Amino acid sequence: MSDHTHGRALSATERTRHRRLREQGGIDRADLDAVLAEGFLCHLGVRVDGHLRVLPTVYGADAETLYFHGSVASRSLVQAPGTEVCLTVTHLDGLVLARSVFEHGVNYRSAMIFGTPRPVTDPEEKLTGLRLLTEQAAPGQWDYARRPSRKELAATALLALSLDEASVKIRTGPPDDGDGPDAGLPVWAGVLPMRTVRGPLEADPLLSEGHTPPPHLTALTTKGI
Amino acid sequence: MSDHTHGRALSATERTRHRRLREQGGIDRADLDAVLAEGFLCHLGVRVDGHLRVLPTVYGADAETLYFHGSVASRSLVQAPGTEVCLTVTHLDGLVLARSVFEHGVNYRSAMIFGTPRPVTDPEEKLTGLRLLTEQAAPGQWDYARRPSRKELAATALLALSLDEASVKIRTGPPDDGDGPDAGLPVWAGVLPMRTVRGPLEADPLLSEGHTPPPHLTALTTKGI
Repeated sequence: MSDHTHGRALSATERTRHRRLREQGGIDRADLDAVLAEGFLCHLGVRVDGHLRVLPTVYGADAETLYFHGSVASRSLVQAPGTEVCLTVTHLDGLVLARSVFEHGVNYRSAMIFGTPRPVTDPEEKLTGLRLLTEQAAPGQWDYARRPSRKELAATALLALSLDEASVKIRTGPPDDGDGPDAGLPVWAGVLPMRTVRGPLEADPLLSEGHTPPPHLTALTTKGI
Repeated sequence: MSDHTHGRALSATERTRHRRLREQGGIDRADLDAVLAEGFLCHLGVRVDGHLRVLPTVYGADAETLYFHGSVASRSLVQAPGTEVCLTVTHLDGLVLARSVFEHGVNYRSAMIFGTPRPVTDPEEKLTGLRLLTEQAAPGQWDYARRPSRKELAATALLALSLDEASVKIRTGPPDDGDGPDAGLPVWAGVLPMRTVRGPLEADPLLSEGHTPPPHLTALTTKGI
């Protein structure tokens, strides 16, 4: 994400204020950018046909706007614009193993974005959004794979969500009961770190033999696996 | 999860019927059990103070019921019972790198559960639910760490959600454009697998030296990392 967003405070509306004490609420825009930059999967909360749904979907973001695929939600969001959503991106970093069950928890980074998505209809902005989406998951792929045709563009429901109203929550570090009354218990305590690894690449069986992946794709695989 | 749930069909209400063609919708209860058994983090969609939120939270499940921590949602769910939620568990298995941008996607397994959660008030059921929650993330930990006191139990907002109305979506395998008009393009295609690895365990710095983790915790770490 671009540098000029760093240092800007996030909005602090009623619903983005933090009420829990143990987690830290991010107040810097750089925290939001960092959470969004890492992944490409989010969970979109939206009402469809009068019922609340939480849908996993892919996203891409620039400094101001997050773009996401419509899929199921598009029926509601495209046909009935003006629907409020909440879109959450979460990275699970570890399991916090405390001395007491009560103090168990998770280390995580999570961003919640609130707003009313706008269906993207302009073909140029649709291309921009799809490029962001594609590059978020696999940098270099937009210039490598075949780009969308006019017909494919028309068939793609893309939505744009402003990053203006957002909240970030982060929990890191060891359990909180290391200096309390449970510190003397004969119980091991610490963190089980968790992370996502990628690769090795698996070629499509229908690909002709000897076709090797380009460097921008091999670069996506985690080293040492 | 227990064997007797296998083979039972999931409900097929209007909102759990699948509308997209490329993904497979699970119709067997065993698919739901398998998705729920693997993780311990879910995304809960709920209205709080009139606004939709998607909150990451931990869960535990038996054959009939999913238990989850109330935290922020508890203000709404405990104080105003009868609120409908959607709770989604998603495992990201890979990035599908197709010949065309349009056919890019993700391999994933996702379960969506719909219903009206019930605040757990009975202390016995609360213990049962917390045990499921704890064991879901770290089997063996319930019998190892200090169990909740009466005061801690009272301070824990736990909610129960029936697994009766659920939907499972799974996408696996290579991209779909290997036998279409794009098959001849000079573009590598395949899948970048993704998986979560755990470990090695990190001891709390406040733990006395020489205190080693018990076998049920070392068993949680991924082999070979």
